[in-house]
Amino acid sequence: MSDLVTSLLAGSRRALARMLTQVENATPEAQQALEKLFPHTGNAWIIGVTGAPGTGKSSLVNALAKAYRAQGKTVGIVAVDPTSPFSGGAILGDRIRMVELSGDAGVFIRSMATRGSLGGVARATRDVVRVMDAAGFDIILVETVGAGQSEVDIVRTAHTTVVVEAPGLGDDVQAIKAGILEIADVLVVNKADRPGANQTVRALRAMLELGHPAAREQFARHHGRLIEIEVQNNHQDESLWIPPVLQTTATNNTGISELVLAIESHRQFVIESGTITALQKQYLELELYERLQQALMQRFLQTMPKTALADMINHIEARQLDPQRAVNQLLATLDQPSLNIQANES
Amino acid sequence: MSDLVTSLLAGSRRALARMLTQVENATPEAQQALEKLFPHTGNAWIIGVTGAPGTGKSSLVNALAKAYRAQGKTVGIVAVDPTSPFSGGAILGDRIRMVELSGDAGVFIRSMATRGSLGGVARATRDVVRVMDAAGFDIILVETVGAGQSEVDIVRTAHTTVVVEAPGLGDDVQAIKAGILEIADVLVVNKADRPGANQTVRALRAMLELGHPAAREQFARHHGRLIEIEVQNNHQDESLWIPPVLQTTATNNTGISELVLAIESHRQFVIESGTITALQKQYLELELYERLQQALMQRFLQTMPKTALADMINHIEARQLDPQRAVNQLLATLDQPSLNIQANES
Repeated sequence: MSDLVTSLLAGSRRALARMLTQVENATPEAQQALEKLFPHTGNAWIIGVTGAPGTGKSSLVNALAKAYRAQGKTVGIVAVDPTSPFSGGAILGDRIRMVELSGDAGVFIRSMATRGSLGGVARATRDVVRVMDAAGFDIILVETVGAGQSEVDIVRTAHTTVVVEAPGLGDDVQAIKAGILEIADVLVVNKADRPGANQTVRALRAMLELGHPAAREQFARHHGRLIEIEVQNNHQDESLWIPPVLQTTATNNTGISELVLAIESHRQFVIESGTITALQKQYLELELYERLQQALMQRFLQTMPKTALADMINHIEARQLDPQRAVNQLLATLDQPSLNIQANES
Repeated sequence: MSDLVTSLLAGSRRALARMLTQVENATPEAQQALEKLFPHTGNAWIIGVTGAPGTGKSSLVNALAKAYRAQGKTVGIVAVDPTSPFSGGAILGDRIRMVELSGDAGVFIRSMATRGSLGGVARATRDVVRVMDAAGFDIILVETVGAGQSEVDIVRTAHTTVVVEAPGLGDDVQAIKAGILEIADVLVVNKADRPGANQTVRALRAMLELGHPAAREQFARHHGRLIEIEVQNNHQDESLWIPPVLQTTATNNTGISELVLAIESHRQFVIESGTITALQKQYLELELYERLQQALMQRFLQTMPKTALADMINHIEARQLDPQRAVNQLLATLDQPSLNIQANES
């Protein structure tokens, strides 16, 4: 595994591919490798691309990858499909991409078929992005389908988040996607050659006016609640980023250079305003808290005989004990571990 | 508060309304009251109704409520909108309902405007349902908009889950909603007077064939992973419930009696097959684990000076420490609390 880390840092694609498999399977070796790779991360610009199925996200990601390649930048692509195993979206998107971008050593593509829990997907995505970052890719594109909370968690690794829409989606669909707007740094109406593109642009601008900056503040608060530590984001109040709304037709490359420019403007904004520091700190805080919460739970469960928990659940089911009191009883065993052991011995 | 519990159990609507406000605001008094109410719960049949915006969920819930009232049953309605504050859906739906069902003492409606975190909404919904259950309602309808993981968490309180579709939604939208199908006990194509209803029914049946029972097993595994304790669901293997696909037009009451019958069939199935015991045990297990995880984290953070965590995050940000090693260091303080204190004193 140590060799694998060395090969990966030296630029071996094969080492990268093998490492990503380890990371996706969350092996203990992968954890050690991630520790070694961590000091080499923090250099890539991570771009999240999200939107509903049918908006042409995959074509847009391909077009972006080609544009960055033309600038001489290396590109990692992580395609995450958090929807049902029915859709098979990840695999399909992968095949199309393979044809268009294959043979270019400056591009590396990883599709993640997500069959675990949602939290697990967000964690795996974060680790895969981190490995690609350590492997030295300049740009990492994280593509995920828009499905509510899931992509909010997944794009939480991104520095710039591009939200993709398409013309002709009804008002109902727009309403449900309002939550996604709140995470957008750049809005794209793709398939702009279709009728209704201007109308969709106008609708998005209207929603932004309605929801911005209050909506973004809302989003920050939502995540802020989780972590309790106040994030230093004084800079954000002084100079706000207003998400631009662009039109693209990814299939014939229309509007792509403008999109690359908009992403670059956003990058400059977050760096010059200092927002990037607050953002990265916030992501790392959230990660630390999530990992800590999980570790505390695992540690506690190891001290607890499984029968004790099963008995407790039976009592709850019989309405003899309510869930919060049960938790209080479990926590009490932490304060008096010796008492507990004595009771078992007597 | 003790008086409020007594009044609520005696059937006071005013006490119920006041209690729900306390519960939604998660006051310490509410926690005490929930403990007192818990032994009185477990009697209501809880029906989750979920689907995308525009499928006519609210009208369907109204029609169901009226049908149950005609049977002499009391009905509690909890309307949860986990989408953005932009949409204002909860408030709108509430107003429409007020007009149609107002003045009937056998119906109680609660709309939840959800501005907190998603986990918080699921918890609040569970508590609100529990209070209504203790208040003696025979049927509790939990209505939520279909937005990915959120409604999966919210309907996790339900005994029977009704998934509502409507004709004319494109294939793209169908694909994204495949995840919702996995939680359906009864499928309804509402607005069946519109063109394309039969086609939608056929599409849903095809998806069910593809996804069932494997999809349901997948779903059980997904949740099972969280809790580690194996759920005793041998019965499910012997006799599987195949979700029926029904057509309704809620606005003119077409198909509602058939829907009530389908829900009743499902109720009988889960009771007779013994699935209900496994289901309730699983819900309570998940609840216990969530609460325990949260309590462990709170407890740990209280022992930890905030500056210590802030320092650690700074080290992580500077790539001097990786997040997993940071967690290990934090956990080590639990094993050697005396060492830690000595270091501070010296």
